[in-house]
Amino acid sequence: MTSDWPDIAGRLTDFGHVLPARVYFEDTDFSGSVYHTGYLRFMERGRSDFLRMLGVGHRALAAGDEGEPLSFAVRRMTIEFLRAATIDDLLQIETRVVRIDGARLALAQRVLRGSEVLTEAEVVVAVVNGMGKARRIPKGVALRLARSAAP
Amino acid sequence: MTSDWPDIAGRLTDFGHVLPARVYFEDTDFSGSVYHTGYLRFMERGRSDFLRMLGVGHRALAAGDEGEPLSFAVRRMTIEFLRAATIDDLLQIETRVVRIDGARLALAQRVLRGSEVLTEAEVVVAVVNGMGKARRIPKGVALRLARSAAP
Amino acid sequence: MTSDWPDIAGRLTDFGHVLPARVYFEDTDFSGSVYHTGYLRFMERGRSDFLRMLGVGHRALAAGDEGEPLSFAVRRMTIEFLRAATIDDLLQIETRVVRIDGARLALAQRVLRGSEVLTEAEVVVAVVNGMGKARRIPKGVALRLARSAAP
Amino acid sequence: MTSDWPDIAGRLTDFGHVLPARVYFEDTDFSGSVYHTGYLRFMERGRSDFLRMLGVGHRALAAGDEGEPLSFAVRRMTIEFLRAATIDDLLQIETRVVRIDGARLALAQRVLRGSEVLTEAEVVVAVVNGMGKARRIPKGVALRLARSAAP
Repeated sequence: MTSDWPDIAGRLTDFGHVLPARVYFEDTDFSGSVYHTGYLRFMERGRSDFLRMLGVGHRALAAGDEGEPLSFAVRRMTIEFLRAATIDDLLQIETRVVRIDGARLALAQRVLRGSEVLTEAEVVVAVVNGMGKARRIPKGVALRLARSAAP
Repeated sequence: MTSDWPDIAGRLTDFGHVLPARVYFEDTDFSGSVYHTGYLRFMERGRSDFLRMLGVGHRALAAGDEGEPLSFAVRRMTIEFLRAATIDDLLQIETRVVRIDGARLALAQRVLRGSEVLTEAEVVVAVVNGMGKARRIPKGVALRLARSAAP
Repeated sequence: MTSDWPDIAGRLTDFGHVLPARVYFEDTDFSGSVYHTGYLRFMERGRSDFLRMLGVGHRALAAGDEGEPLSFAVRRMTIEFLRAATIDDLLQIETRVVRIDGARLALAQRVLRGSEVLTEAEVVVAVVNGMGKARRIPKGVALRLARSAAP
Repeated sequence: MTSDWPDIAGRLTDFGHVLPARVYFEDTDFSGSVYHTGYLRFMERGRSDFLRMLGVGHRALAAGDEGEPLSFAVRRMTIEFLRAATIDDLLQIETRVVRIDGARLALAQRVLRGSEVLTEAEVVVAVVNGMGKARRIPKGVALRLARSAAP
């Protein structure tokens, strides 16, 4: 995690994690605004970097560090698109833990431009093995996530 | 719409519309399955081709055929990711109208592989002008959509 | 390959293969035209469906049907973007074999809208194993590709 | 450009510009590595942020700050894919000016992981108006780019 780019994975906050994201050509569509899946990609970056800053890496999970190859998979998403982002915007992605049970992790995420909320979502993710079968969230991962949400 | 490729925009059905979609490299991620936004892109293709087969084109809307430049924007989405698709899969995207009110259109969509349901969503879309302001769904568009849902 | 959608993988032609592709929201950017990587994604679909119609599937290769897990990787690309495609356009992707040697396959590809050439590319692809190491193109694959280019 | 995230647009260097980019789920494909268009998206981010740090914004160009709505369009690309990036990799995108003439800008770009070069490209971009017609590169933009390349 030592890097020439200190903020590249965002920052841990009192509520969870925040990540900046720039809107590039690739994120927009012909309507002039960000294509709706762009916000979902930004949120996935936020989840990944939140985990990264807690010491959890996708590559290590996929390599079987927890006994068998594991990866995260999105199970359910409810998402409100409130305002549109456009080219050159600098956004912030907020992520916080809502619930952890044995196999599922619920997160609340928001995409903001300054103090304006552009998108709000609740995201449920599961941990699956190489066959796509649900697995318990590894204890170490669950613990670190639970602590991130402590009052 | 005359074309050497008769099925390129899918088919109108008794419930609404169905569109085939192939899973290519671009749709997958390192977990081996389709990246979660892939299903949303497939669903957007289904909505666009449903409209296309009803005679509604994005380019004509954007060109101001209804008085000012208009485009569709997704407002809300609830989506369940039930089973994963993988490379080379041939999927079908089903779209049906659930509700139309003055400014919003609610659709139910499913992604299937054969008879297996992989993803289910309710999608609310609005019509917006060039400034992103909500506009009434043009009467002709609303009528054609309403008829598509007739019992 | 039996399917309710007979043309879903395009068609073999006397020069190689042709695949239709529709321009959707996801392919465009705020400039109003297709984002430049869109043409590359269309071309990859063309290559995949050309192989598919020759009986070569990515999933079978990845499953080790040729002795070890194999996949195709792009090694070099020279691409000219001549004219822009826009939303709702119906494009055709042409693919033909230029050269096959032991480890590399060179293809010429074009994206057309009617008779207008929008994009032209030469693409060199290799076959790699799970570690990313170059492997000979499997004999059966090379043969089928060579025959597709016969005068 | 004042921001809580000082490095969000990368840094100007003696040769031009460098931008960090993280590999996320969205960038990978089922082969386990970054999908080939991912490197092109990273390079476009590098070009955009190079321009941004020189004071040139896509939104201002599109808004007609130079007399009519303008945007950049890629005209030609030659790209070598030498080594693959994988999930969680932290990459650096280098961009330098090779040539500027009235209507075209040639750039050399590389994607690196540490000191390893993964991808190398020469990219020719043009400035186009809202109709897609080529326009002279605005004088101020050309000057700033020319200076960035000074020995």
